[in-house]
Amino acid sequence: MRKVAIVGVGMTRFCEDWKRGFRDLVLEAGRKALEDAKLSGAEIDGMYCGTMAPGRLIAQEHAGALLADWMGLNPVPSTRVEAACASGGVALRSGFLAVASGYHDCVVVGGVEKMTDVPGADVVSALGGAGDQEWELFPGATFPGIYALMARRHMLDYGTTEEQMASVAVKNHLNGSKNKYAQYQNVITLDTVLKSKVVASPLKVFDCSPVTDGAAALVLMPLDKAKAHSEMPIEIVASAQASDTLALHDRKSLTSMRATEVASKKAYEMAKVTPKDISVAEVHDCFTIAEILAIEDLGFVKKGQGGPASEAGKTALNSDISINTSGGLKACGHPVGATGIKQAVEVTWQLRGQANGRQVEDCDIGLTHNVGGSGATAVVHIMKRAY
Amino acid sequence: MRKVAIVGVGMTRFCEDWKRGFRDLVLEAGRKALEDAKLSGAEIDGMYCGTMAPGRLIAQEHAGALLADWMGLNPVPSTRVEAACASGGVALRSGFLAVASGYHDCVVVGGVEKMTDVPGADVVSALGGAGDQEWELFPGATFPGIYALMARRHMLDYGTTEEQMASVAVKNHLNGSKNKYAQYQNVITLDTVLKSKVVASPLKVFDCSPVTDGAAALVLMPLDKAKAHSEMPIEIVASAQASDTLALHDRKSLTSMRATEVASKKAYEMAKVTPKDISVAEVHDCFTIAEILAIEDLGFVKKGQGGPASEAGKTALNSDISINTSGGLKACGHPVGATGIKQAVEVTWQLRGQANGRQVEDCDIGLTHNVGGSGATAVVHIMKRAY
Repeated sequence: MRKVAIVGVGMTRFCEDWKRGFRDLVLEAGRKALEDAKLSGAEIDGMYCGTMAPGRLIAQEHAGALLADWMGLNPVPSTRVEAACASGGVALRSGFLAVASGYHDCVVVGGVEKMTDVPGADVVSALGGAGDQEWELFPGATFPGIYALMARRHMLDYGTTEEQMASVAVKNHLNGSKNKYAQYQNVITLDTVLKSKVVASPLKVFDCSPVTDGAAALVLMPLDKAKAHSEMPIEIVASAQASDTLALHDRKSLTSMRATEVASKKAYEMAKVTPKDISVAEVHDCFTIAEILAIEDLGFVKKGQGGPASEAGKTALNSDISINTSGGLKACGHPVGATGIKQAVEVTWQLRGQANGRQVEDCDIGLTHNVGGSGATAVVHIMKRAY
Repeated sequence: MRKVAIVGVGMTRFCEDWKRGFRDLVLEAGRKALEDAKLSGAEIDGMYCGTMAPGRLIAQEHAGALLADWMGLNPVPSTRVEAACASGGVALRSGFLAVASGYHDCVVVGGVEKMTDVPGADVVSALGGAGDQEWELFPGATFPGIYALMARRHMLDYGTTEEQMASVAVKNHLNGSKNKYAQYQNVITLDTVLKSKVVASPLKVFDCSPVTDGAAALVLMPLDKAKAHSEMPIEIVASAQASDTLALHDRKSLTSMRATEVASKKAYEMAKVTPKDISVAEVHDCFTIAEILAIEDLGFVKKGQGGPASEAGKTALNSDISINTSGGLKACGHPVGATGIKQAVEVTWQLRGQANGRQVEDCDIGLTHNVGGSGATAVVHIMKRAY
């Protein structure tokens, strides 16, 4: 396999963007990534687009070709990939493999979702497609309900408290307040979270990531060619993915995600690093409990210690490990297909030293962790500077 | 890049299968492919699933993880890819790149669509997601209408006749009558086609491929390992894909598909063959005019000669070039995401000499051609025996 590097990144602001559609968003992110890589587009020979549910949200499938069309890059081959909320992560992985294989030399990987101002679409039902339709959603489960089950079990098994979960939201809003691309840039307190309306007990509104419009894009090249195109190439030193059952009731444990454990173990082996070597990680905090599960399953803290570690500030900016410096899904927002790509954009900025106002000091190695649904897909990438 | 081979194939019968759902179909195809490859499943380390619109048809996204779940293959990484009607083709290409890269050693590639007996789903509207929603489908165009425009222009520019188009359907039904997996196994006449109801003039019901349930699967391995697992490995000697505009009105020509031309040119170069070297080809005949365009754009006949060549029987079984021996989309059926994989299954059977009753003589090199929408994506693979 060839070594692969990120040579350009770009993203839209994440927000409720009622003035712009799917095509406008992906175009802006792609253009910014090409500009960042100082490429005109003529060098691009492959494209991947991660997006979860454009069929149900805007009645448009075939988003790969649409992306090539709208960016004026025909006849470049362009493929949509989807793994629910991990669509961006699997798009990055697809681009990684396409370059690693030797087939492609310059690949754009985009992620996008247009979720608000979509007349006629049922966003909650569309998102339900990430879970087991026959066994969970159709009988009445919702995603907050599914994650609430995991939270309740974690509270029972490990003594995790609502305050500990709330501390995740407080920390991510503080990080988001330093990120001009974040949907929510307001600082909140524990009380804001604890007194907000219950969605699915114990999860309250401020335990949940929002509905967001946005897009993000990366340009990938083989490392040996990247150095001629970028002063600051970021090498992708590991790419790993794993699957688990769609339905929660088929799993052995509600308090750890096996797909995260398997994918991260493989990623650490591939990168020849341990969790202690990671300076910055963007993890999948679709709910506050999900960040607690993630930092445990990724090995940053021991199982059961995710709550206390969060409450003690060990995951804050420039503490033991800086988690979700972008604000995470919680504060930066969660345009589903864009999230996995945005994570890589943030880690690239951190490794390059470009994360103005929220820079992690001595930032050497970064990790992204993107989850689909309630954990049926997990994708982990590890990156480091190649200059 | 490593050389890649097909070591196992399997498919369901294509039909209106009111007794079985999405999961049953993909499970049967996957099981058959594993059995054909004499693999237990423990060797599988990667999966791809091509499916176009399960979100709109069965309210289920995340089909990659669903496939791994239902086949009992967790935690194997599994990704859904989509390019409308070319979803199967891009799934095969994704699996090819994953093995070629050296990352994966044994990959299952599945294609599936459940299109009938889907209460609450609007199949025609869901299929419309393959085209340009904003500029074509929302204003009122339909897919038969879009292909009818191409047919009318081909008739005007090249004198193509309705009888010539009808001869494509007659030939494909004759081929389908010899294929126990085909949806339609009845022989028809030119009159059957010409007197059938008009859908979008000049296209009649019998010019159109049907709505179908079905799944197909392949097992891919690196060629050097394939020989230990299969007595008859089939090497994929070329894999190429290209994009074009989603909307017809943005194209320079209505009578050729640029994506097919670009992808096939690349595929021929990669395989170091010419169109004359191809013994058997499965091409994308979603409408009869589409097969005429395909055999021209793939270089089997000169531009404008697709109609006369079809009428003269030059594309019949064991004639100049055997086109759509499976019955094609027209007679074998078109479960959208499964089609691109079924094409590779048929070509594998032909190259192995296993196409009972419809075997192409001296069958050395085969080609598959899968189109998304009205030509915004085209994927071409070329295969030959590796034994």
